[in-house]
Amino acid sequence: MPLIQVDMFEGRTADIKREFVEGITRETCRLLKCEPASVQVILRDVKKSDWATAGVLWSEKK
Amino acid sequence: MPLIQVDMFEGRTADIKREFVEGITRETCRLLKCEPASVQVILRDVKKSDWATAGVLWSEKK
Amino acid sequence: MPLIQVDMFEGRTADIKREFVEGITRETCRLLKCEPASVQVILRDVKKSDWATAGVLWSEKK
Amino acid sequence: MPLIQVDMFEGRTADIKREFVEGITRETCRLLKCEPASVQVILRDVKKSDWATAGVLWSEKK
Amino acid sequence: MPLIQVDMFEGRTADIKREFVEGITRETCRLLKCEPASVQVILRDVKKSDWATAGVLWSEKK
Amino acid sequence: MPLIQVDMFEGRTADIKREFVEGITRETCRLLKCEPASVQVILRDVKKSDWATAGVLWSEKK
Repeated sequence: MPLIQVDMFEGRTADIKREFVEGITRETCRLLKCEPASVQVILRDVKKSDWATAGVLWSEKK
Repeated sequence: MPLIQVDMFEGRTADIKREFVEGITRETCRLLKCEPASVQVILRDVKKSDWATAGVLWSEKK
Repeated sequence: MPLIQVDMFEGRTADIKREFVEGITRETCRLLKCEPASVQVILRDVKKSDWATAGVLWSEKK
Repeated sequence: MPLIQVDMFEGRTADIKREFVEGITRETCRLLKCEPASVQVILRDVKKSDWATAGVLWSEKK
Repeated sequence: MPLIQVDMFEGRTADIKREFVEGITRETCRLLKCEPASVQVILRDVKKSDWATAGVLWSEKK
Repeated sequence: MPLIQVDMFEGRTADIKREFVEGITRETCRLLKCEPASVQVILRDVKKSDWATAGVLWSEKK
């Protein structure tokens, strides 16, 4: 029953998201030996102004 | 101090959400024997184009 | 496809957890009009020494 | 490698968010003895109509 | 900066986890066009007695 | 109502955790202009064998 929650910067197209959930699910089934129907993937778009590394928002990085 | 985070497909009305957090909090207090004031519920709307089961986004399902 | 993630203090018995996931799922289906099979509930036990309110860990509260 | 995920009511300005991630990262490095580059902070804006305490959405509180 | 949080039933060996994070990261980089160093994966082991589908804990399923 | 969820490598002492939640709460109140009582902090210990960067578990890094 893997549940995969992915935070990523916003801006990916519908096509890229579709291929990503397909690829990540196939890889999960292959490596964890589980059925595709048991794999849930939830994508969360995060704004660069809501994600910081080293104390600096990505919207502020040069 | 239960904290309840709920991901659901977007589109529920304000009325349904209001009744949902009320019902889920009452049921939590009854079953876990805790005070209503200690129960936090956070709802997260997820687009069908951001949630996949079996590698297929719900926005793509027929 | 509601996904319900619940953080609670550790220490609940298997019986209480069983009744809790049953009750919370029934209430979710009734209020959000969804199928039981679509509801996932994940419980996370949290130690009182890992949860703080107002800056004080619950393990330290008198 | 601390990962800090913060849910807060929506409405904070970009300036407040920038100072917040800076302050929280500095405090984390000081107290957990870690490098700034290892600290990730993700902010999540939550609507008052998506957050309930004691079974009541904050959008409904008087 | 993808962040991937995976909940799975406990019991996977260290070898399977090592191959899983490697495979999932490679697939993420290929599909989202990002650098390996930007991908974080956090695995969370969940007991069957803490995960319910359709209101029934997996520890109770026959 | 900020909710702060922190994933960190396991191994911090009770003293460090106590000072950390105190410091992080004080900084949050100062910067977000909120009451201490409204700040929840949940700490999650993560094993080095459950956290990967660049596809490599921290338990495997030399």
